[in-house]
Amino acid sequence: MHSAHTIPTGRIEAFSDGIIAIIITVMVFDLKLQEIPTGKTVWNELAQLLPKFISYVVSFLMLAIMWINHHQLFHQIKHTDRQLLWLSIHLLFWMSLIPFGTNFVGVNYKLYQASFFYGVIFLMCAWSFTLLREYVIRKDLLYEHISKQAHWRIRNKNRLAMAIYGTAVVLSLVSVYFSFALFLVVPGMYFIPERIIHNKN
Amino acid sequence: MHSAHTIPTGRIEAFSDGIIAIIITVMVFDLKLQEIPTGKTVWNELAQLLPKFISYVVSFLMLAIMWINHHQLFHQIKHTDRQLLWLSIHLLFWMSLIPFGTNFVGVNYKLYQASFFYGVIFLMCAWSFTLLREYVIRKDLLYEHISKQAHWRIRNKNRLAMAIYGTAVVLSLVSVYFSFALFLVVPGMYFIPERIIHNKN
Amino acid sequence: MHSAHTIPTGRIEAFSDGIIAIIITVMVFDLKLQEIPTGKTVWNELAQLLPKFISYVVSFLMLAIMWINHHQLFHQIKHTDRQLLWLSIHLLFWMSLIPFGTNFVGVNYKLYQASFFYGVIFLMCAWSFTLLREYVIRKDLLYEHISKQAHWRIRNKNRLAMAIYGTAVVLSLVSVYFSFALFLVVPGMYFIPERIIHNKN
Amino acid sequence: MHSAHTIPTGRIEAFSDGIIAIIITVMVFDLKLQEIPTGKTVWNELAQLLPKFISYVVSFLMLAIMWINHHQLFHQIKHTDRQLLWLSIHLLFWMSLIPFGTNFVGVNYKLYQASFFYGVIFLMCAWSFTLLREYVIRKDLLYEHISKQAHWRIRNKNRLAMAIYGTAVVLSLVSVYFSFALFLVVPGMYFIPERIIHNKN
Repeated sequence: MHSAHTIPTGRIEAFSDGIIAIIITVMVFDLKLQEIPTGKTVWNELAQLLPKFISYVVSFLMLAIMWINHHQLFHQIKHTDRQLLWLSIHLLFWMSLIPFGTNFVGVNYKLYQASFFYGVIFLMCAWSFTLLREYVIRKDLLYEHISKQAHWRIRNKNRLAMAIYGTAVVLSLVSVYFSFALFLVVPGMYFIPERIIHNKN
Repeated sequence: MHSAHTIPTGRIEAFSDGIIAIIITVMVFDLKLQEIPTGKTVWNELAQLLPKFISYVVSFLMLAIMWINHHQLFHQIKHTDRQLLWLSIHLLFWMSLIPFGTNFVGVNYKLYQASFFYGVIFLMCAWSFTLLREYVIRKDLLYEHISKQAHWRIRNKNRLAMAIYGTAVVLSLVSVYFSFALFLVVPGMYFIPERIIHNKN
Repeated sequence: MHSAHTIPTGRIEAFSDGIIAIIITVMVFDLKLQEIPTGKTVWNELAQLLPKFISYVVSFLMLAIMWINHHQLFHQIKHTDRQLLWLSIHLLFWMSLIPFGTNFVGVNYKLYQASFFYGVIFLMCAWSFTLLREYVIRKDLLYEHISKQAHWRIRNKNRLAMAIYGTAVVLSLVSVYFSFALFLVVPGMYFIPERIIHNKN
Repeated sequence: MHSAHTIPTGRIEAFSDGIIAIIITVMVFDLKLQEIPTGKTVWNELAQLLPKFISYVVSFLMLAIMWINHHQLFHQIKHTDRQLLWLSIHLLFWMSLIPFGTNFVGVNYKLYQASFFYGVIFLMCAWSFTLLREYVIRKDLLYEHISKQAHWRIRNKNRLAMAIYGTAVVLSLVSVYFSFALFLVVPGMYFIPERIIHNKN
């Protein structure tokens, strides 16, 4: 009975993995020389790729972190339900816009509009993650032995990330370099502490 | 023995997830600034993206709804057979045309041909779903404890969706805005009631 | 122990599904209006898409048939080995060229080179399938209760398909329409009889 | 308990498969005629595709080998952990740049910069593999009955591959043909010996 009554997490995980994997590789497709290069033009062509490459690296890193967090969260969920599916799809929607933001920053990083939208997209991703995590905790979808405290703590970290992205969005109107600096804070923030929490449960 | 005699649903689910995931992200690839923007042209460039973005959101929503329904349906199927594979592939074919329709509406939404084809594609998707569901019910592929009534009711809702899309297709010849309005009715329609039915079984 | 000594078929199936799913959707990406259409140019634009669309439908159908056969074959395999992995990758390589052939036929179907290469690609796919199936039968990788006769019969049908594709390749030098006609024979050929064989085992 | 305490390898395998599958097919998307060919221009168009095709074949082969090694390695791993996830993502990052290198070599193989970056990308991939394998051996993540010696031997082969790629990178400054020759050495190197090691465990 169970098998048909509750929805296992397997398929939403596979679907999310698929979309995240494709988002990453769609961005790679933009890392391409625009003109057929000659000995004279090749360095110039490559130089034009540099901002695209840097924005790709940052987005790749952010997507990898999101994937790991998604991985960890769903790994601790007993089963999913209709609402959780929609919250995951809501997250995937904002993640699916990352290639747009990455391309925008890559083609002309000097425009404040680029870092503005880039920041907004990541802000919405962090927000979607917060909604997803809060729902999972409140709806008691976590395995009994998983400490809810740990997840509330991650939720608070997500909120901090949201605050940083929000600041980056506003600062992009002052100087894009401020917001670029802030974009690098979040990966660093998630790179280390996660592990501690993971050891906890 | 069983393992080799009947075909489990796992692989068709994975295959469908893969295709749906890629369809979604292929559309994202169209959300791109056509020219390298400057401070002068950037707002104009972004304005040109707006219809593309809106058609992306609608298609994303429709694809998410289809994915959830596909997810729910196959989750209640005991095993698949050759014909069900073909009915699923038939559905995937029409879904695979959604990026074309989305791009068409996005590049020039004022053309009635755009909303015409956009509507036809969704009409065929709804039709494929109806065929799939009817086959599953008739061939007794549902788990015994799943109420067929619930699935007949969804089938009827699919038919209603087909009628709405059909009207949208015809109305596109009168005014594209009529059909756009109707395109939004179906997501709304599927957004809520599903849940009730899902609770039933 | 077993789990680490023999290689289960799961991952090669998933990998193949992924590649086939992406091949299909990569082709969809070519179904796109080249210019931003206006009321005057839109029908003309759509007319130019027609050959692309037809070649897409044929390739989609062929890929679906290959996927179903791959699905059925691996479903009856006990476990895989290094050589089977390479034979599968060899098959995936030729399948991965289908979007190139489809695009070539789509952009200018009148050129005999287009149908020539299109045919060669499908010829190599059919050949790879034959190699794969022969290896599986010879190496006794099928479940004991699966009739090898059935698989030898499919192998022979693959050979027939190869002969048809070979003829289509040669005839493309005489008239592309001859080879187009032959390209439609194979799907028809695989559409029905498979089922009988499938019932057998 | 176990299910939620240690991270199974399933999802990182699926995620890697997804990315590798997409990387391969993204490259196929570059195998496309640039202009709509006519009877006069078609051979010329195809000739221009030849270097792209050759670089595609080499990259496809390298990716297939990496996939098989990844497949084999994770198949012998008991469970994964946070650090292993990051080492896998690090590998996937370098693999994700292969389409860029392949496109670069394909559009103008005569430029030393092309083979230089192509080589650097593969060098980093081999390095990532070495890190991954060393971590797995040191952290005792292999099933007890798997011979660590075998994996140390593969690690050493990876180092040899790194040396070859490093030489190819340097030689590209002298002549691109030297480095092309070396690029073919590694696939050959991995094609055969792997099997022996695989039989061992």
